[in-house]
Amino acid sequence: MAVDPTHQSLAQAVLTGDRRALARAITLVESTRADHREGATALLTQLGNAGERAIRIGLSGTPGVGKSTFIEAFGLYLIEQGLRVAVLAVDPSSTRSGGSILGDKTRMDLLSRTPQAFIRPSPSQTELGGVARRTRESIQLCAAAGFDVVLIETVGVGQSETMVAEMTDIFTLLLAPAGGDELQGVKRGIMEVADLILVNKADGDLEAQAMRTVADYAGALRLLRKRSQDPEGIPRAMPVSALTGKGIAEAWQAMKTLFEARNAAGIIGSRRKDQALSAFRRTTNAALLDLLRKDPGIAAVWAGAEAEIIAGQQSPEAAMQQLIDAARRRLK
Amino acid sequence: MAVDPTHQSLAQAVLTGDRRALARAITLVESTRADHREGATALLTQLGNAGERAIRIGLSGTPGVGKSTFIEAFGLYLIEQGLRVAVLAVDPSSTRSGGSILGDKTRMDLLSRTPQAFIRPSPSQTELGGVARRTRESIQLCAAAGFDVVLIETVGVGQSETMVAEMTDIFTLLLAPAGGDELQGVKRGIMEVADLILVNKADGDLEAQAMRTVADYAGALRLLRKRSQDPEGIPRAMPVSALTGKGIAEAWQAMKTLFEARNAAGIIGSRRKDQALSAFRRTTNAALLDLLRKDPGIAAVWAGAEAEIIAGQQSPEAAMQQLIDAARRRLK
Repeated sequence: MAVDPTHQSLAQAVLTGDRRALARAITLVESTRADHREGATALLTQLGNAGERAIRIGLSGTPGVGKSTFIEAFGLYLIEQGLRVAVLAVDPSSTRSGGSILGDKTRMDLLSRTPQAFIRPSPSQTELGGVARRTRESIQLCAAAGFDVVLIETVGVGQSETMVAEMTDIFTLLLAPAGGDELQGVKRGIMEVADLILVNKADGDLEAQAMRTVADYAGALRLLRKRSQDPEGIPRAMPVSALTGKGIAEAWQAMKTLFEARNAAGIIGSRRKDQALSAFRRTTNAALLDLLRKDPGIAAVWAGAEAEIIAGQQSPEAAMQQLIDAARRRLK
Repeated sequence: MAVDPTHQSLAQAVLTGDRRALARAITLVESTRADHREGATALLTQLGNAGERAIRIGLSGTPGVGKSTFIEAFGLYLIEQGLRVAVLAVDPSSTRSGGSILGDKTRMDLLSRTPQAFIRPSPSQTELGGVARRTRESIQLCAAAGFDVVLIETVGVGQSETMVAEMTDIFTLLLAPAGGDELQGVKRGIMEVADLILVNKADGDLEAQAMRTVADYAGALRLLRKRSQDPEGIPRAMPVSALTGKGIAEAWQAMKTLFEARNAAGIIGSRRKDQALSAFRRTTNAALLDLLRKDPGIAAVWAGAEAEIIAGQQSPEAAMQQLIDAARRRLK
């Protein structure tokens, strides 16, 4: 692909850390227009592996756990440590949740006015496949722009957590203090991908309850098998307070230690390659199957097979054989 | 497909509950020979929906938890209740584990000599796809032969649990008593699909420890979201003792109650249809992708794309576009 001089200069501006150039670049990768897609691909090719030093952290939490106040406190703490922080939001259900996620930058008033921070709300109205591509590319752009930490915020609904876990180095789950039966809200799939569980609001009246919640989740995590190469004590549950700042430094320390241990073990690099490969395979497989399913020589056979399975008139295995035969004829 | 008279008479013999006919039928579905596959499909078509009343229970547990003594005690209890019980073993790793799973029927000495029971060890040496098909078909055969309960035993290693959960009505995890860090052995994916966790060996010296293990897992399960339509208290952890019989009746009662609640809510029927449809889609998708990947017009493009992604020379998205273009050319 020929390098468009416009994208070359945009790439250079992104690499210098120019926030407006970064915002423009993200708008470009968010677009679905064919010429914009080509431009985005050219831009990303230009940027190559720039920014691979950045730590990519996924942060999930259902509404009400205090995600934005936590991100504000956490982001400002990182900036105090001399780091630059980008925050991206992923909300595949933004139509359902009213687009609230990061939609109102005033939720992170101080952070959004800090020059060392970059906050990008989630655009509304897109399907999950598009969200994955766009988020993956936006992370790459933020990293290339020299942000040390790229935080990807997602609401704890549906598949977005697994998706975010598959494009980050560390995955963090933010919870509110709760007791007994209230705790049921966490989807099992999310527990499965969490490296750290942070129980927020560990302050004032809620502090004791937050500590009990930490103990409950620490117990639950002990029952689950940890990833074999991670340091002792991961996954881990910890208390934090966005209000008082309690636990913020410890949470960052835990993330940094985990990142460094994984990096030293070569896991970060191989994990990112695996993530890119599986993103490729997953999207390619889905697109290829879509192509086959819509193929005039296959679509009718497919529909008939499913109808017969539902009616109990054919076994899944016999139906599969029909489809394979139909596909073989098409590829002859 | 023309109905082979042999399969017609075999089908009739299976339907009368003839154990030798059932054994022969399972041998037929286990075979990968093309003519046997055709015969198996004809046989299964003959049997149709016969046996849909049978309760299909998955039972998983790592070696050492006392799976076979539990199945013996549980099976004999069911037979006392006037039920007929079939036990199938799934062991995709039978070469690794030395084929020990149900390989030695003497492990279930009493049960295997009871005419109301049918025990079928796992054949060795097959890949997972074949295991899924064969197990699914064997369950159908046992159900058609009038067994009230079909128990599918699997060792707690790898993907076999998810597979078994996807072909049963209820999924049960059998654990041994353990304390603290020892509990880590359970894979998260297994916790996720378990309806019931039975802690075995709740007898003698181990009883107190078993009760603590039950409490630990009950706590962990409370933290995980339950399936929305299930009765209160599912998933659930309970103590059992294959030795003293403690908890066996309660475990069966819990399974029966769950089955009946799901059945009354229409979940069993729709779940089985969903299971058949997803078995069809999964195997068909895999087979179709395999066909495409090996296609001479696509294979080289695919390999090149993956190599470039690994080298960081191409984004997953750009690589996908290449593959789609190659597939479009082939389907023109």
